Amino acid sequence: MSRFFSSRHASLTAYTPGEQPQDRRYVKLNTNESPFPPSPAVVAAAAAEAARLQLYSDPESRAVTEAVAARYGVSPDMVLMVNGSDEILNFAFLAFGDAEHGFVCPDISYGFYPVFAALNHVPLREIPLRDDFSVDPEDYCGVGANIVLANPNAPTGRALPLADIERIVQTNPGHVVVIDEAYVDFGGESCAALVKRYDNLLVTQTFSKSRSLAGGRLGFGIGCPALIRDLNTIKYSTNPYNVNRMSAACGAAAIADDAYYRKNARTIMENRAYTAQALRQRGFEVLPSAANFLFARPAFCGGGELYRGLKARGVLIRHWDKPRIEAWCRITVGTKEQMDALLAAIDDMIREANA
Amino acid sequence: MSRFFSSRHASLTAYTPGEQPQDRRYVKLNTNESPFPPSPAVVAAAAAEAARLQLYSDPESRAVTEAVAARYGVSPDMVLMVNGSDEILNFAFLAFGDAEHGFVCPDISYGFYPVFAALNHVPLREIPLRDDFSVDPEDYCGVGANIVLANPNAPTGRALPLADIERIVQTNPGHVVVIDEAYVDFGGESCAALVKRYDNLLVTQTFSKSRSLAGGRLGFGIGCPALIRDLNTIKYSTNPYNVNRMSAACGAAAIADDAYYRKNARTIMENRAYTAQALRQRGFEVLPSAANFLFARPAFCGGGELYRGLKARGVLIRHWDKPRIEAWCRITVGTKEQMDALLAAIDDMIREANA
Repeated sequence: MSRFFSSRHASLTAYTPGEQPQDRRYVKLNTNESPFPPSPAVVAAAAAEAARLQLYSDPESRAVTEAVAARYGVSPDMVLMVNGSDEILNFAFLAFGDAEHGFVCPDISYGFYPVFAALNHVPLREIPLRDDFSVDPEDYCGVGANIVLANPNAPTGRALPLADIERIVQTNPGHVVVIDEAYVDFGGESCAALVKRYDNLLVTQTFSKSRSLAGGRLGFGIGCPALIRDLNTIKYSTNPYNVNRMSAACGAAAIADDAYYRKNARTIMENRAYTAQALRQRGFEVLPSAANFLFARPAFCGGGELYRGLKARGVLIRHWDKPRIEAWCRITVGTKEQMDALLAAIDDMIREANA
Repeated sequence: MSRFFSSRHASLTAYTPGEQPQDRRYVKLNTNESPFPPSPAVVAAAAAEAARLQLYSDPESRAVTEAVAARYGVSPDMVLMVNGSDEILNFAFLAFGDAEHGFVCPDISYGFYPVFAALNHVPLREIPLRDDFSVDPEDYCGVGANIVLANPNAPTGRALPLADIERIVQTNPGHVVVIDEAYVDFGGESCAALVKRYDNLLVTQTFSKSRSLAGGRLGFGIGCPALIRDLNTIKYSTNPYNVNRMSAACGAAAIADDAYYRKNARTIMENRAYTAQALRQRGFEVLPSAANFLFARPAFCGGGELYRGLKARGVLIRHWDKPRIEAWCRITVGTKEQMDALLAAIDDMIREANA
């Protein structure tokens, strides 16, 4: 810390993203990326746009905004494109939170929510998940605070049905409910259509997971026009050209190429079922998942041990040294070949443990 | 505004970027873009990276960080890459400003500084430029506040010599001095090398202007390692993957292709001299410029009239309805052909005024 860093950040601890090793090649199952490249049409769109980079991007990102709006059946003034969905989550804490307007979220969820809260000086109350790591919707009905809820949740993978989400939104008319649908395309139910009936709902999504654009940094929010205007006020007060030309072009092309991405999502869901069964056969407890990852607890070793043992064998997964979940690991679902490499490495660890 | 927007933003007025018309084709001289496309090597680098977008970008942007560090003769831990230099300017207000640590800047400068200050609740005092729109360095020596100074300044184009900048940095050891060098490659003197001697200096630059990447959104800051660490704390608390893979690859390729961009900058400086003379011949007052734009006052009409008259003739320039500069316009310097189109449109306006 320099001697100039404002004391208002004294208690701020930044987010630690999953490892992104640049040296060794791992079977990379630690940051929920897609194992499939973007579609050829997306790659072509990026390449075409690269020749025009001397001109600023459209600050309104009109083409991709209209594509997203059409895809989710809302009007373009109900959509805001951002530089990855982390950006809009931060905007939401900044726009709708303050000392008198705190947020609640589950105690086990996306680790960035407490960081956004701390940075923006917004009180955050964590509500414990049930023992089976499911969200009890009753905890959020009429809770009297803004809410941020990942659905499906991370790192658990468990999802709430649409009816529960609607009840939470409906019973909190005086507060903003942010539903983070980063993982919705792997078996969850999107609540995006509800924004037409509820002015307190903000739905956030990303192109990083099901649409193979993690490295393109593109996310969006869907909400009523007034909420989107507020978020635009924040955007135009920080970085009006937040989305670059290439990523915007990739996004529009990805929406147009929906069939390619749906097929990939189906494959990942098949590989998820395959892997869950294989892990259970090896004595793991595996939570039901509606996401592109599995949250699993090995019987033969601890969570940290599994993470380290697999890393030594060239397979990266994610582990948190955190109460309640230190025995668990989050494993991204990739290709069948990647899953078999994971299982082979686990078998090797089990053999060694039994030797 | 929604009923949920925090009252802490009640007095916030967002920044208004220059028009980015998506419909009609203009001779676009309003947002200081380069008229030259990125180099072929940059376009190729973007296209190659597009095929790998399913994987997150390196949160440390190591390749381009190292290229920038080598180019400016500093170590990589003295460089932070960002999603356009607006992002790091906002980070600087957030990191180093608070109610007790305000900023000063010129009264006529980049219009975003007051917005960053308002968003982050940092007091900002504006110091009037001299009557000839030059910065009086004495106004900033030992000023007792953080400083943000564009050098060359915008929209005036006037630059301070390196010795004056060093004196400002030297006489404010207790405060951060941010030197915004967005336009430095068109005849200014960079103070980047000073960061090795002064721990209170942050230099920001962009790839948007001289490096033809406005639509790629890439900027950077150079400062001592402790300042860069603070700015990283803010980055990792808002958007760790702030720079996408394609833009990072473009940036590294652009640094490698320095000769291409230096040649373009020389051409723009030649066209700037040509245009300044042609405008003076037409009765304009034109400030000396070290940037890729000219700040000029027509004699035959007002600033707003010039802007509107040129827009009607298919030429976009920038005008602010603001005290002291309402008679002036900022004109981006483009190709010789664009400059001739501008001059022809001005001649048409003069003919009409004299008819």
